[in-house]
Amino acid sequence: MDELNTVAIIGLGLIGSSIARAAGAALPGSSLTGFDSDEAVRRRAAELGLVAVVDSAADAVRDANLVILCVPVGAMTAAAESIAPHLRPGAIVSDVGSSKASVAAELERVLSVARVVPAHPVAGTEQSGPDAGFASLFRGRWCILTPGETSDGPALLALRAFWQALGARVEVMDAHHHDLVLAVTSHVPHLIAYTIVGTASDLEAVTEGEVIKYSAGGFRDFTRIAASSPVMWRDIFLANKDAVLDTLQRFGEDLSLLQRAIRNDDGETLLDLFTRTSAIRRGIVEMGQDTAAADFGRTHEQG
Amino acid sequence: MDELNTVAIIGLGLIGSSIARAAGAALPGSSLTGFDSDEAVRRRAAELGLVAVVDSAADAVRDANLVILCVPVGAMTAAAESIAPHLRPGAIVSDVGSSKASVAAELERVLSVARVVPAHPVAGTEQSGPDAGFASLFRGRWCILTPGETSDGPALLALRAFWQALGARVEVMDAHHHDLVLAVTSHVPHLIAYTIVGTASDLEAVTEGEVIKYSAGGFRDFTRIAASSPVMWRDIFLANKDAVLDTLQRFGEDLSLLQRAIRNDDGETLLDLFTRTSAIRRGIVEMGQDTAAADFGRTHEQG
Repeated sequence: MDELNTVAIIGLGLIGSSIARAAGAALPGSSLTGFDSDEAVRRRAAELGLVAVVDSAADAVRDANLVILCVPVGAMTAAAESIAPHLRPGAIVSDVGSSKASVAAELERVLSVARVVPAHPVAGTEQSGPDAGFASLFRGRWCILTPGETSDGPALLALRAFWQALGARVEVMDAHHHDLVLAVTSHVPHLIAYTIVGTASDLEAVTEGEVIKYSAGGFRDFTRIAASSPVMWRDIFLANKDAVLDTLQRFGEDLSLLQRAIRNDDGETLLDLFTRTSAIRRGIVEMGQDTAAADFGRTHEQG
Repeated sequence: MDELNTVAIIGLGLIGSSIARAAGAALPGSSLTGFDSDEAVRRRAAELGLVAVVDSAADAVRDANLVILCVPVGAMTAAAESIAPHLRPGAIVSDVGSSKASVAAELERVLSVARVVPAHPVAGTEQSGPDAGFASLFRGRWCILTPGETSDGPALLALRAFWQALGARVEVMDAHHHDLVLAVTSHVPHLIAYTIVGTASDLEAVTEGEVIKYSAGGFRDFTRIAASSPVMWRDIFLANKDAVLDTLQRFGEDLSLLQRAIRNDDGETLLDLFTRTSAIRRGIVEMGQDTAAADFGRTHEQG
């Protein structure tokens, strides 16, 4: 199995800086280099001492046996092009994009000489930038690898071991299936949250001050989701267009049914659905993907 | 101003039991009685020592100068009817329903001899029952009073002082306006969350296990909202039908615009909205209605 003792991280935001922190703690013998196209981010990452920050993507990847592209999905092709001529022979190149089929195709096209293994760690917060990262972000979370038909086995095993060292649980999946699963578990929920926050701020009869004041009734949780990086999310929706539109279509049909139930005073239909959804919640808590502790009251307020 | 030294709480779930705990702590000289139509809840509330639990609504309210109905909106009329003949002259009757215009009309109709002041503390968690309550639930949250044309001034002032003693900030508002504000800040967000959780569990191509496994990408926050009491929420949607349907209509139009933007690769429209919504998030954090701390990673996982 490949030993990944020199890791280059391209893009030092929330995810890139969290990988740097986690790898620094879990793989003390390895060397970490990093680059970000934003000079302010490079400066901050250097201050934080997360990686050896260099001034070009070329310099970052020159000696690396693993390169991880941690840039928004829409910036992935440009990032791949900037490293392609400078890669060490046999280097493994991976990424962390939330949309996989289109990204994987681009990486394989641009990096035809490298060993490409696309990946997606399903973890994050609504915050952005190198200060937002933390070493335990991936602990107990799933990282999905989506190797293509030409991906080589040893590279897959090495990347799996890398993510496991960072505390993640690893799953291998077809890229198109990944995109469908993530459309419903992440992409469409984010789009809906952005939409309702926009709807609320456009109402004439309800002021923005009122929306903010009374947000504890549920709305604030949507604004939290809708505070995630705008560029990252724009890119995800455009890259995973088909699965997102298909899921949105189904969501719209289901919402119409509930609208009709409300209009017709059909409480039974409402109660059926509301009871059914609580079983999924229990499953998530049992799988350790969330805690059962009440959160609407916010932990810090209790006691 | 009326001194509210004997308080009866009808319904001892999350909100009722939280009022009991908060009043017990904030108003040590006052006497608290309570009743719940569910015998198991009465027994548990007695074990917890929250209030003097009695076996009928009539016994609970006999000596009270303040009665608070803490039952689902759809059970409000029956609860009011059960106390009407037993109220002490001059007693103030209030409630905690999330929908106000229809509830206020019912309370005023059934309790024409009492001094009715409808109220809605905008606070809660996704959990239910007497064990889920806690004394600080209302601290720093808003409680909206919606007095009718016939509400008397001293009763309004007394109820305001009561909620302030429990740590709430109090606002007075027209019942219909309340229903519009809450439709957008609470009711429609809940309906959307229930819907997408249902949509996810109905997909053929994605298993429920996958939905649960990869829920950390955003979905788990929707399941949290969709874990709230099914009966309570059924009642709210039916009671606030007009405002909910009107807000849903606008939400649907806004979602269609985004759908079209995705279909047409119109990244600018997406980026505009996603940037605008982050301002509302900042307002909520500045108003103290949520913390800025990253929550997607869940506090307990960090460090």
